[in-house]
Amino acid sequence: MRVDGLPRRAIWLEPDGESVGIIDQTLLPHVFETRRLVTAAEAVHAIGTMQVRGAPLIGATAAYGLALALREDAGDAAMAQAAATLAATRPTAVNLAWALERMCRRLGPMASGERVAAAYAEAAAIVAEDVAANAAIGRHGMQLLRAAHSPGRPVRVLTHCNAGWLATCGWGTALAPIYMAHDAGIEVHVWVDETRPRNQGAALTAWELLQHGVPHAVVADNAGGHLMQRGQVDLVIVGADRVTATGDVANKIGTYLKALAAHDTGVPFYVAMPSSTIDWRLADGIAGIAIEERHASEVTVVQGRAADGRVVAVQVTPDGTPAANPAFDVTPARLVTALVTERGVCPASAAGLSRLFPEALERAAS
Amino acid sequence: MRVDGLPRRAIWLEPDGESVGIIDQTLLPHVFETRRLVTAAEAVHAIGTMQVRGAPLIGATAAYGLALALREDAGDAAMAQAAATLAATRPTAVNLAWALERMCRRLGPMASGERVAAAYAEAAAIVAEDVAANAAIGRHGMQLLRAAHSPGRPVRVLTHCNAGWLATCGWGTALAPIYMAHDAGIEVHVWVDETRPRNQGAALTAWELLQHGVPHAVVADNAGGHLMQRGQVDLVIVGADRVTATGDVANKIGTYLKALAAHDTGVPFYVAMPSSTIDWRLADGIAGIAIEERHASEVTVVQGRAADGRVVAVQVTPDGTPAANPAFDVTPARLVTALVTERGVCPASAAGLSRLFPEALERAAS
Repeated sequence: MRVDGLPRRAIWLEPDGESVGIIDQTLLPHVFETRRLVTAAEAVHAIGTMQVRGAPLIGATAAYGLALALREDAGDAAMAQAAATLAATRPTAVNLAWALERMCRRLGPMASGERVAAAYAEAAAIVAEDVAANAAIGRHGMQLLRAAHSPGRPVRVLTHCNAGWLATCGWGTALAPIYMAHDAGIEVHVWVDETRPRNQGAALTAWELLQHGVPHAVVADNAGGHLMQRGQVDLVIVGADRVTATGDVANKIGTYLKALAAHDTGVPFYVAMPSSTIDWRLADGIAGIAIEERHASEVTVVQGRAADGRVVAVQVTPDGTPAANPAFDVTPARLVTALVTERGVCPASAAGLSRLFPEALERAAS
Repeated sequence: MRVDGLPRRAIWLEPDGESVGIIDQTLLPHVFETRRLVTAAEAVHAIGTMQVRGAPLIGATAAYGLALALREDAGDAAMAQAAATLAATRPTAVNLAWALERMCRRLGPMASGERVAAAYAEAAAIVAEDVAANAAIGRHGMQLLRAAHSPGRPVRVLTHCNAGWLATCGWGTALAPIYMAHDAGIEVHVWVDETRPRNQGAALTAWELLQHGVPHAVVADNAGGHLMQRGQVDLVIVGADRVTATGDVANKIGTYLKALAAHDTGVPFYVAMPSSTIDWRLADGIAGIAIEERHASEVTVVQGRAADGRVVAVQVTPDGTPAANPAFDVTPARLVTALVTERGVCPASAAGLSRLFPEALERAAS
């Protein structure tokens, strides 16, 4: 992906081969700044403060975070401690636990002297696999956009939050099909949900689409139902932070409302995610997925660029008014038209998922 | 209602008996300032820029606006012109057309010399009737809150936008039952939808509830579905900008999404409004109600109070990103549990409304 014409990814190993580069996404779209993570504590900070966010990118950052931790102390106790600290940064995205479990499974049997190099290799493999998964999701999802395309007007796609290249190691999940369709000459118009409280749609998705030249318009989160009701949306596609083995989808707060509207108006509702986002041990998303409650100030205070160019935070509520801030919600599988994975498109159900990933279900059962 | 302990209404005749007082609601919750409308042009400006908003208050302001116009020229042509200009300020709320039609019906047969005094009298009657309707809505709606109250915890009510005293001439519509329940000692907790793009929930409803001492918390518009799904909402109550004779409800954008979630989770969804909000000539809300498209800057720019105390506007999108801004949506009657009117609670249907208002349907048919 490109920023001001230069190729960029959302995470990279710096030329020193040790520190890890990220984009500070809390400053976008107004300021583009990169950060260098040198210690595990910096990785924990980057995930917790949402300098990096998006389930696949969180997983990759945690994997590299563990590698950074092992440079300080590669012993068993230190590794377990570092993995636990990284795992506690965000509770909802399953990629975080998935990446750390994979790292520990690989590194656990090794002598401590071998662990650092192996950790960097395994983190790089996680990144490379996510890049490949993104590309495959893009190819499979593009067919859905192609099928929804009527001659003479663009395919009108609504998306929520940011599931683009800033949320992953490659093209993105929900946005990968959009980029591929656009690049293949299919006319696309994207309705971008603002995605309060942190505005990942208005700030990140709009910025990505603008940089890539994809036609789009930001709308308040409240507007999607009306647009669908008036026939102005051909399909909805979103990412996911965790998908159960039965196809329930935890994603950014507000996703459930859009799924309800799509269901009520007959608009297809797709969820795009790599298999690393599937929690094979969970059957009931509403009962089983911990929903992160974030700080009230994310609701009461909005960050943006003032007329003088400075990025400032403004309070939108009266002093003394409290706020609640659940960061995710769960969309029941019955509202999801299909899941778009690196292995193809399948129904949001245990049967659909197990047909595409037979080995994963077996592993979870064992 | 009280502001800093002093009694206040959202519209009043100034002591000079001619100019009209309003609160500049665009500055709330950070600054409390009143404005004096001396000319019809100022009334047009106040409605168009949303210094006053809320269907009943728009109707009352337009009625007084016509009185102000007649002070300049009380002839037939000038009156028709002023009514047309006032009617064009906002397209969705039916109270605006209702109030102006009522004024012209009353004033039309009069000699021009009698019109000014009669116009002030009729505007005052519209205000007085709205105050009485609010009180009746409050009494009827309070019974719904009382019925939903479980001992040992508050009734948890979710509301969208502002349908409080700032939106009407009296107590409000959706908030009137809440104020009455609170004053009657029923424990209430209000989930206040922020209500992007203009934040009437975070800015106005939260401010009203804070001034009145009603426990509440602001949430992002995205959160309501999740709260309902997790059993944290006992009922939803909202106002309306226009209700069809069949019970379809046009209200602030995003209302439809909350109605879908309430329907999906079994939470009662009530709409509170005076009969002046009913458009007896309309049967199909989705096909028949013009939805106002407001300026994109309401989406791309957010107003709030900076750390230095100044009220500033900040842009949340990247330069060059467009936005769409439909201001209302239509909730089909099938999703509405009941309507709460000044004459009582009724099903959202032609049968339900005509039982409460038999004379209105007859008038519309004639």
